[in-house]
Amino acid sequence: MMAQVDDPAPAARRPRGRPRKSETRVDTRALIVAAAATEFTAKGYDSTSMRAIARRAGVDPSLVHHYFGDKADLFAETIRAPLRPDRLVAAVLDGPRDRVGENLVRALVTAVDDPKVSKRAVGLLRTALGQEFAAALLRQFISREVLGRIAATLGGEQAELRASFAASQMVGLLVARYGVRIEPLASASVEEVVRRVGPVIQWHLTGGGPLDGGGTPGE
Amino acid sequence: MMAQVDDPAPAARRPRGRPRKSETRVDTRALIVAAAATEFTAKGYDSTSMRAIARRAGVDPSLVHHYFGDKADLFAETIRAPLRPDRLVAAVLDGPRDRVGENLVRALVTAVDDPKVSKRAVGLLRTALGQEFAAALLRQFISREVLGRIAATLGGEQAELRASFAASQMVGLLVARYGVRIEPLASASVEEVVRRVGPVIQWHLTGGGPLDGGGTPGE
Repeated sequence: MMAQVDDPAPAARRPRGRPRKSETRVDTRALIVAAAATEFTAKGYDSTSMRAIARRAGVDPSLVHHYFGDKADLFAETIRAPLRPDRLVAAVLDGPRDRVGENLVRALVTAVDDPKVSKRAVGLLRTALGQEFAAALLRQFISREVLGRIAATLGGEQAELRASFAASQMVGLLVARYGVRIEPLASASVEEVVRRVGPVIQWHLTGGGPLDGGGTPGE
Repeated sequence: MMAQVDDPAPAARRPRGRPRKSETRVDTRALIVAAAATEFTAKGYDSTSMRAIARRAGVDPSLVHHYFGDKADLFAETIRAPLRPDRLVAAVLDGPRDRVGENLVRALVTAVDDPKVSKRAVGLLRTALGQEFAAALLRQFISREVLGRIAATLGGEQAELRASFAASQMVGLLVARYGVRIEPLASASVEEVVRRVGPVIQWHLTGGGPLDGGGTPGE
Protein backbone atom coordinates (compact mmCIF):
# COMPACT_ATOMS: atom_id res chain seq x y z
CA MET A 1 0.00 0.00 0.00
CA MET A 2 2.93 2.36 -0.63
CA ALA A 3 1.98 5.56 -2.41
CA GLN A 4 3.92 8.39 -3.98
CA VAL A 5 2.98 11.91 -3.00
CA ASP A 6 4.24 15.25 -4.19
CA ASP A 7 6.57 17.12 -1.94
CA PRO A 8 4.59 20.14 -0.74
CA ALA A 9 7.52 22.52 -1.32
CA PRO A 10 7.27 23.49 -5.06
CA ALA A 11 4.00 25.39 -4.61
CA ALA A 12 5.77 28.77 -4.90
CA ARG A 13 6.14 28.21 -8.65
CA ARG A 14 2.39 27.69 -9.17
CA PRO A 15 0.15 30.39 -10.74
CA ARG A 16 -2.14 32.46 -8.53
CA GLY A 17 -5.57 31.10 -7.70
CA ARG A 18 -4.44 27.51 -7.69
CA PRO A 19 -3.85 26.58 -4.08
CA ARG A 20 -1.92 23.50 -5.02
CA LYS A 21 0.25 23.64 -1.94
CA SER A 22 -2.63 23.42 0.53
CA GLU A 23 -4.37 20.76 -1.56
CA THR A 24 -1.23 18.69 -1.50
CA ARG A 25 -0.85 19.27 2.21
CA VAL A 26 -4.39 18.04 2.85
CA ASP A 27 -3.75 14.97 0.71
CA THR A 28 -0.48 14.21 2.42
CA ARG A 29 -2.00 14.67 5.86
CA ALA A 30 -4.92 12.43 4.92
CA LEU A 31 -2.53 9.83 3.54
CA ILE A 32 -0.53 9.83 6.78
CA VAL A 33 -3.68 9.63 8.92
CA ALA A 34 -4.97 6.70 6.85
CA ALA A 35 -1.63 4.92 7.18
CA ALA A 36 -1.62 5.60 10.91
CA ALA A 37 -5.12 4.14 11.29
CA THR A 38 -3.99 0.97 9.54
CA GLU A 39 -0.82 0.67 11.65
CA PHE A 40 -2.54 1.42 14.97
CA THR A 41 -5.28 -1.08 14.20
CA ALA A 42 -2.82 -3.78 13.17
CA LYS A 43 -0.21 -3.31 15.91
CA GLY A 44 -1.86 -1.35 18.71
CA TYR A 45 -0.82 2.02 20.07
CA ASP A 46 2.31 0.98 21.93
CA SER A 47 3.92 -1.00 19.09
CA THR A 48 3.27 1.49 16.32
CA SER A 49 6.15 3.83 15.42
CA MET A 50 6.09 7.12 13.52
CA ARG A 51 8.68 5.54 11.20
CA ALA A 52 6.41 2.59 10.35
CA ILE A 53 3.54 4.98 9.64
CA ALA A 54 5.78 7.01 7.31
CA ARG A 55 6.84 3.83 5.54
CA ARG A 56 3.25 2.72 5.01
CA ALA A 57 2.25 6.18 3.80
CA GLY A 58 5.23 6.22 1.43
CA VAL A 59 6.51 9.53 2.80
CA ASP A 60 9.66 10.61 4.57
CA PRO A 61 9.48 10.28 8.39
CA SER A 62 10.38 13.96 8.72
CA LEU A 63 7.15 14.80 6.90
CA VAL A 64 5.13 12.87 9.48
CA HIS A 65 6.85 14.86 12.25
CA HIS A 66 6.25 18.05 10.26
CA TYR A 67 2.49 17.52 10.26
CA PHE A 68 2.13 15.77 13.63
CA GLY A 69 4.27 16.59 16.64
CA ASP A 70 4.23 13.15 18.21
CA LYS A 71 2.47 9.80 18.19
CA ALA A 72 -0.28 11.03 20.55
CA ASP A 73 -1.05 13.86 18.10
CA LEU A 74 -1.34 11.44 15.24
CA PHE A 75 -3.45 9.00 17.22
CA ALA A 76 -5.84 11.76 18.32
CA GLU A 77 -6.22 12.77 14.67
CA THR A 78 -6.76 9.16 13.61
CA ILE A 79 -9.68 8.64 15.98
CA ARG A 80 -10.88 12.24 15.49
CA ALA A 81 -10.57 12.74 19.25
CA PRO A 82 -12.89 15.54 20.43
CA LEU A 83 -10.33 16.63 23.02
CA ARG A 84 -6.81 15.74 24.08
CA PRO A 85 -6.96 14.00 27.45
CA ASP A 86 -3.16 13.81 27.54
CA ARG A 87 -2.79 17.60 27.20
CA LEU A 88 -5.64 18.27 29.61
CA VAL A 89 -3.94 16.06 32.19
CA ALA A 90 -0.50 17.58 31.56
CA ALA A 91 -1.89 21.07 32.15
CA VAL A 92 -3.59 20.05 35.40
CA LEU A 93 -0.50 18.24 36.67
CA ASP A 94 1.40 21.52 36.32
CA GLY A 95 -0.91 23.03 38.96
CA PRO A 96 -1.11 22.50 42.73
CA ARG A 97 -0.87 18.86 43.78
CA ASP A 98 -3.73 19.08 46.27
CA ARG A 99 -6.13 20.44 43.64
CA VAL A 100 -5.45 17.90 40.90
CA GLY A 101 -8.85 16.25 41.48
CA GLU A 102 -11.01 19.34 41.21
CA ASN A 103 -8.93 20.82 38.38
CA LEU A 104 -9.15 17.61 36.33
CA VAL A 105 -12.92 17.41 36.75
CA ARG A 106 -13.42 21.10 35.97
CA ALA A 107 -11.25 20.93 32.83
CA LEU A 108 -12.95 17.76 31.56
CA VAL A 109 -16.55 18.82 32.21
CA THR A 110 -16.00 22.34 30.86
CA ALA A 111 -14.60 20.88 27.63
CA VAL A 112 -17.16 18.10 27.18
CA ASP A 113 -20.20 20.26 28.02
CA ASP A 114 -19.78 21.48 24.42
CA PRO A 115 -22.37 19.34 22.55
CA LYS A 116 -20.05 18.76 19.59
CA VAL A 117 -17.38 17.40 21.93
CA SER A 118 -19.74 15.27 23.99
CA LYS A 119 -21.35 13.72 20.91
CA ARG A 120 -17.95 12.66 19.63
CA ALA A 121 -16.79 11.47 23.08
CA VAL A 122 -19.90 9.30 23.52
CA GLY A 123 -19.42 7.92 20.00
CA LEU A 124 -15.85 6.92 20.81
CA LEU A 125 -16.93 5.21 24.03
CA ARG A 126 -19.65 3.33 22.16
CA THR A 127 -17.13 2.14 19.58
CA ALA A 128 -14.71 1.07 22.30
CA LEU A 129 -17.49 -0.96 23.97
CA GLY A 130 -18.37 -2.69 20.70
CA GLN A 131 -15.09 -3.48 19.00
CA GLU A 132 -12.21 -5.18 20.71
CA PHE A 133 -9.53 -3.52 18.59
CA ALA A 134 -11.01 -0.10 19.38
CA ALA A 135 -11.09 -0.95 23.07
CA ALA A 136 -7.46 -2.11 22.93
CA LEU A 137 -6.34 1.06 21.17
CA LEU A 138 -8.16 3.35 23.56
CA ARG A 139 -6.92 1.33 26.53
CA GLN A 140 -3.29 1.60 25.41
CA PHE A 141 -3.56 5.30 24.63
CA ILE A 142 -5.19 6.05 28.00
CA SER A 143 -2.64 3.90 29.87
CA ARG A 144 0.40 5.33 28.14
CA GLU A 145 -0.45 8.99 27.64
CA VAL A 146 -2.91 9.72 30.43
CA LEU A 147 -2.62 7.30 33.37
CA GLY A 148 1.12 6.74 32.91
CA ARG A 149 1.68 10.49 33.00
CA ILE A 150 -0.44 10.92 36.12
CA ALA A 151 1.27 8.02 37.89
CA ALA A 152 4.76 9.25 36.96
CA THR A 153 4.04 12.77 38.19
CA LEU A 154 2.21 11.95 41.41
CA GLY A 155 4.23 8.85 42.25
CA GLY A 156 3.61 6.97 45.48
CA GLU A 157 2.56 3.41 46.17
CA GLN A 158 0.49 1.71 43.48
CA ALA A 159 0.35 4.91 41.45
CA GLU A 160 -0.87 3.13 38.30
CA LEU A 161 -3.57 1.23 40.16
CA ARG A 162 -4.74 4.50 41.70
CA ALA A 163 -4.77 6.24 38.33
CA SER A 164 -6.88 3.47 36.80
CA PHE A 165 -9.52 3.86 39.55
CA ALA A 166 -9.54 7.62 39.02
CA ALA A 167 -10.10 6.90 35.33
CA SER A 168 -13.14 4.76 36.20
CA GLN A 169 -14.82 7.72 37.94
CA MET A 170 -13.95 10.06 35.04
CA VAL A 171 -15.28 7.63 32.42
CA GLY A 172 -18.38 7.03 34.53
CA LEU A 173 -18.95 10.77 34.73
CA LEU A 174 -18.81 10.97 30.92
CA VAL A 175 -21.23 8.07 30.45
CA ALA A 176 -23.68 9.24 33.14
CA ARG A 177 -23.68 12.96 32.20
CA TYR A 178 -23.41 12.81 28.40
CA GLY A 179 -24.31 9.25 27.38
CA VAL A 180 -27.16 7.80 29.44
CA ARG A 181 -27.82 11.30 30.92
CA ILE A 182 -28.78 10.25 34.43
CA GLU A 183 -30.50 13.07 36.32
CA PRO A 184 -30.00 15.19 38.35
CA LEU A 185 -26.28 14.72 37.53
CA ALA A 186 -26.76 15.41 33.81
CA SER A 187 -28.20 18.88 34.49
CA ALA A 188 -25.97 19.79 37.45
CA SER A 189 -23.72 22.84 37.10
CA VAL A 190 -20.02 22.41 36.40
CA GLU A 191 -19.19 23.58 39.93
CA GLU A 192 -21.65 21.12 41.48
CA VAL A 193 -19.92 18.31 39.57
CA VAL A 194 -16.51 19.63 40.66
CA ARG A 195 -17.63 19.68 44.32
CA ARG A 196 -18.90 16.12 44.21
CA VAL A 197 -16.41 14.38 41.91
CA GLY A 198 -13.23 16.42 42.45
CA PRO A 199 -12.65 15.03 45.97
CA VAL A 200 -13.23 11.48 44.68
CA ILE A 201 -10.56 11.87 42.00
CA GLN A 202 -8.22 13.45 44.56
CA TRP A 203 -8.78 10.55 46.93
CA HIS A 204 -8.37 7.92 44.21
CA LEU A 205 -5.08 9.53 43.15
CA THR A 206 -3.51 10.64 46.41
CA GLY A 207 -5.64 9.26 49.23
CA GLY A 208 -6.19 12.66 50.80
CA GLY A 209 -7.90 15.95 50.10
CA PRO A 210 -11.23 17.56 50.84
CA LEU A 211 -12.96 14.26 51.69
CA ASP A 212 -11.11 14.20 55.01
CA GLY A 213 -13.24 15.06 57.98
CA GLY A 214 -16.51 13.32 57.13
CA GLY A 215 -18.09 16.29 55.40
CA THR A 216 -21.06 15.97 53.14
CA PRO A 217 -20.22 16.26 49.43
CA GLY A 218 -21.08 19.60 47.94
CA GLU A 219 -22.48 21.13 51.09
CA MET B 1 -51.21 -6.23 16.86
CA MET B 2 -53.71 -8.06 19.08
CA ALA B 3 -53.30 -11.83 19.14
CA GLN B 4 -55.25 -14.71 20.58
CA VAL B 5 -53.42 -17.20 22.74
CA ASP B 6 -54.58 -20.41 24.32
CA ASP B 7 -55.11 -20.41 28.02
CA PRO B 8 -52.32 -22.56 29.49
CA ALA B 9 -54.71 -24.42 31.80
CA PRO B 10 -56.09 -27.30 29.63
CA ALA B 11 -52.73 -29.10 29.38
CA ALA B 12 -53.88 -31.86 31.75
CA ARG B 13 -56.07 -33.33 28.99
CA ARG B 14 -53.16 -33.63 26.49
CA PRO B 15 -51.55 -37.02 25.68
CA ARG B 16 -48.11 -37.87 27.09
CA GLY B 17 -45.03 -36.68 25.22
CA ARG B 18 -46.70 -33.52 24.00
CA PRO B 19 -45.69 -30.79 26.40
CA ARG B 20 -48.34 -28.47 25.09
CA LYS B 21 -48.66 -26.64 28.38
CA SER B 22 -45.04 -25.54 28.55
CA GLU B 23 -45.01 -24.72 24.84
CA THR B 24 -47.99 -22.52 25.31
CA ARG B 25 -46.45 -20.96 28.36
CA VAL B 26 -43.30 -20.13 26.41
CA ASP B 27 -45.38 -18.67 23.60
CA THR B 28 -47.50 -16.61 25.96
CA ARG B 29 -44.44 -15.37 27.82
CA ALA B 30 -42.75 -14.46 24.54
CA LEU B 31 -45.89 -12.70 23.36
CA ILE B 32 -46.04 -10.65 26.55
CA VAL B 33 -42.32 -9.80 26.36
CA ALA B 34 -42.70 -8.69 22.74
CA ALA B 35 -45.69 -6.55 23.63
CA ALA B 36 -43.76 -5.08 26.57
CA ALA B 37 -40.81 -4.20 24.33
CA THR B 38 -43.13 -2.34 21.97
CA GLU B 39 -44.89 -0.48 24.79
CA PHE B 40 -41.69 0.44 26.63
CA THR B 41 -40.09 1.68 23.41
CA ALA B 42 -43.15 3.73 22.46
CA LYS B 43 -43.98 5.23 25.86
CA GLY B 44 -40.89 4.89 28.03
CA TYR B 45 -40.57 2.98 31.29
CA ASP B 46 -42.53 5.33 33.53
CA SER B 47 -45.61 5.67 31.31
CA THR B 48 -46.00 1.99 30.45
CA SER B 49 -48.54 0.02 32.50
CA MET B 50 -48.89 -3.73 32.95
CA ARG B 51 -52.49 -3.30 31.77
CA ALA B 52 -51.43 -1.67 28.47
CA ILE B 53 -48.93 -4.47 27.88
CA ALA B 54 -51.65 -7.06 28.47
CA ARG B 55 -53.96 -5.24 26.06
CA ARG B 56 -51.29 -5.16 23.35
CA ALA B 57 -50.48 -8.84 23.90
CA GLY B 58 -54.18 -9.71 23.76
CA VAL B 59 -54.07 -11.50 27.12
CA ASP B 60 -55.75 -10.96 30.45
CA PRO B 61 -53.79 -8.63 32.81
CA SER B 62 -53.79 -11.35 35.45
CA LEU B 63 -51.78 -13.53 33.08
CA VAL B 64 -49.10 -10.82 32.83
CA HIS B 65 -48.91 -10.71 36.62
CA HIS B 66 -48.84 -14.50 36.70
CA TYR B 67 -45.70 -14.65 34.56
CA PHE B 68 -44.04 -11.43 35.76
CA GLY B 69 -44.29 -10.14 39.30
CA ASP B 70 -44.05 -6.47 38.50
CA LYS B 71 -43.07 -3.96 35.83
CA ALA B 72 -39.37 -4.12 36.76
CA ASP B 73 -39.45 -7.90 36.22
CA LEU B 74 -40.97 -7.50 32.82
CA PHE B 75 -38.59 -4.73 31.82
CA ALA B 76 -35.55 -6.77 32.91
CA GLU B 77 -36.83 -9.65 30.77
CA THR B 78 -37.47 -7.34 27.83
CA ILE B 79 -33.88 -6.05 27.74
CA ARG B 80 -32.53 -9.47 28.76
CA ALA B 81 -30.88 -7.81 31.75
CA PRO B 82 -27.91 -9.88 32.94
CA LEU B 83 -28.66 -8.95 36.55
CA ARG B 84 -31.32 -7.11 38.50
CA PRO B 85 -29.81 -3.88 39.81
CA ASP B 86 -33.06 -3.06 41.62
CA ARG B 87 -32.95 -6.33 43.60
CA LEU B 88 -29.21 -6.02 44.23
CA VAL B 89 -29.76 -2.53 45.64
CA ALA B 90 -32.79 -3.60 47.70
CA ALA B 91 -30.75 -6.39 49.31
CA VAL B 92 -27.86 -4.05 50.14
CA LEU B 93 -30.19 -1.39 51.56
CA ASP B 94 -31.48 -4.00 54.01
CA GLY B 95 -27.97 -4.20 55.50
CA PRO B 96 -26.05 -1.74 57.72
CA ARG B 97 -26.31 1.87 56.59
CA ASP B 98 -22.59 2.59 57.02
CA ARG B 99 -21.60 -0.32 54.77
CA VAL B 100 -23.92 0.39 51.86
CA GLY B 101 -20.98 1.54 49.70
CA GLU B 102 -18.78 -1.50 50.13
CA ASN B 103 -21.72 -3.92 50.00
CA LEU B 104 -23.02 -2.41 46.76
CA VAL B 105 -19.61 -2.61 45.10
CA ARG B 106 -18.99 -6.17 46.30
CA ALA B 107 -22.41 -7.38 45.12
CA LEU B 108 -22.07 -5.71 41.72
CA VAL B 109 -18.49 -6.80 40.98
CA THR B 110 -19.07 -10.34 42.22
CA ALA B 111 -22.07 -10.68 39.89
CA VAL B 112 -20.54 -9.03 36.84
CA ASP B 113 -17.19 -10.82 37.09
CA ASP B 114 -19.12 -13.71 35.48
CA PRO B 115 -18.15 -13.36 31.78
CA LYS B 116 -21.67 -14.10 30.57
CA VAL B 117 -23.03 -11.31 32.75
CA SER B 118 -20.33 -8.78 31.86
CA LYS B 119 -20.70 -9.43 28.13
CA ARG B 120 -24.40 -8.70 28.34
CA ALA B 121 -23.90 -5.69 30.62
CA VAL B 122 -21.37 -4.13 28.24
CA GLY B 123 -23.71 -4.83 25.32
CA LEU B 124 -26.54 -2.99 27.08
CA LEU B 125 -24.31 -0.01 27.84
CA ARG B 126 -23.19 0.11 24.21
CA THR B 127 -26.80 0.11 23.03
CA ALA B 128 -27.72 2.83 25.51
CA LEU B 129 -24.84 4.98 24.20
CA GLY B 130 -25.94 4.48 20.61
CA GLN B 131 -29.72 4.75 20.60
CA GLU B 132 -31.63 7.54 22.28
CA PHE B 133 -34.69 5.43 23.02
CA ALA B 134 -32.50 2.80 24.68
CA ALA B 135 -30.77 5.48 26.73
CA ALA B 136 -34.13 6.93 27.76
CA LEU B 137 -35.45 3.53 28.82
CA LEU B 138 -32.35 2.63 30.81
CA ARG B 139 -32.29 6.12 32.37
CA GLN B 140 -35.91 5.84 33.51
CA PHE B 141 -35.47 2.33 34.85
CA ILE B 142 -32.31 3.29 36.76
CA SER B 143 -33.90 6.46 38.14
CA ARG B 144 -37.15 4.82 39.21
CA GLU B 145 -36.08 1.38 40.41
CA VAL B 146 -32.49 1.90 41.52
CA LEU B 147 -31.70 5.53 42.37
CA GLY B 148 -35.21 6.34 43.58
CA ARG B 149 -35.07 3.37 45.93
CA ILE B 150 -31.65 4.37 47.28
CA ALA B 151 -32.70 8.00 47.76
CA ALA B 152 -35.97 7.03 49.49
CA THR B 153 -34.19 4.66 51.87
CA LEU B 154 -31.17 6.79 52.75
CA GLY B 155 -32.98 10.13 52.63
CA GLY B 156 -31.16 13.31 53.54
CA GLU B 157 -30.47 16.46 51.57
CA GLN B 158 -30.29 16.11 47.82
CA ALA B 159 -30.67 12.34 48.06
CA GLU B 160 -31.45 11.94 44.35
CA LEU B 161 -28.52 14.08 43.30
CA ARG B 162 -26.23 12.04 45.52
CA ALA B 163 -27.60 8.77 44.15
CA SER B 164 -26.95 9.91 40.57
CA PHE B 165 -23.29 10.66 41.38
CA ALA B 166 -22.94 7.25 43.03
CA ALA B 167 -24.37 5.76 39.83
CA SER B 168 -21.67 7.53 37.80
CA GLN B 169 -18.93 5.75 39.77
CA MET B 170 -20.72 2.40 39.46
CA VAL B 171 -21.24 2.77 35.70
CA GLY B 172 -17.64 3.92 35.29
CA LEU B 173 -16.47 0.85 37.18
CA LEU B 174 -18.43 -1.35 34.75
CA VAL B 175 -17.03 0.43 31.68
CA ALA B 176 -13.43 0.51 32.96
CA ARG B 177 -13.31 -3.06 34.30
CA TYR B 178 -15.43 -4.95 31.76
CA GLY B 179 -15.71 -2.70 28.71
CA VAL B 180 -12.48 -0.83 27.94
CA ARG B 181 -10.66 -3.00 30.54
CA ILE B 182 -8.28 -0.41 31.90
CA GLU B 183 -5.43 -1.99 33.86
CA PRO B 184 -4.53 -2.59 36.65
CA LEU B 185 -8.20 -2.05 37.65
CA ALA B 186 -9.51 -4.70 35.24
CA SER B 187 -7.38 -7.44 36.88
CA ALA B 188 -7.71 -6.24 40.47
CA SER B 189 -9.33 -8.60 42.99
CA VAL B 190 -12.90 -8.05 44.07
CA GLU B 191 -11.70 -6.97 47.53
CA GLU B 192 -9.23 -4.48 46.07
CA VAL B 193 -12.09 -2.93 44.10
CA VAL B 194 -14.27 -2.90 47.22
CA ARG B 195 -11.52 -1.12 49.20
CA ARG B 196 -11.04 1.56 46.57
CA VAL B 197 -14.57 2.14 45.29
CA GLY B 198 -16.72 1.23 48.32
CA PRO B 199 -15.71 4.38 50.26
CA VAL B 200 -16.39 6.52 47.19
CA ILE B 201 -19.94 5.18 46.86
CA GLN B 202 -20.46 5.61 50.60
CA TRP B 203 -19.26 9.22 50.38
CA HIS B 204 -21.36 9.98 47.32
CA LEU B 205 -24.45 8.60 49.06
CA THR B 206 -24.03 9.67 52.68
CA GLY B 207 -21.04 12.01 52.85
CA GLY B 208 -19.29 9.93 55.50
CA GLY B 209 -17.63 6.58 55.95
CA PRO B 210 -14.19 5.07 55.64
CA LEU B 211 -12.74 7.99 53.64
CA ASP B 212 -12.69 10.08 56.80
CA GLY B 213 -9.28 10.59 58.29
CA GLY B 214 -7.17 11.17 55.21
CA GLY B 215 -6.17 7.54 54.76
CA THR B 216 -4.80 6.18 51.55
CA PRO B 217 -7.29 4.03 49.60
CA GLY B 218 -6.70 0.34 49.99
CA GLU B 219 -3.73 0.60 52.31
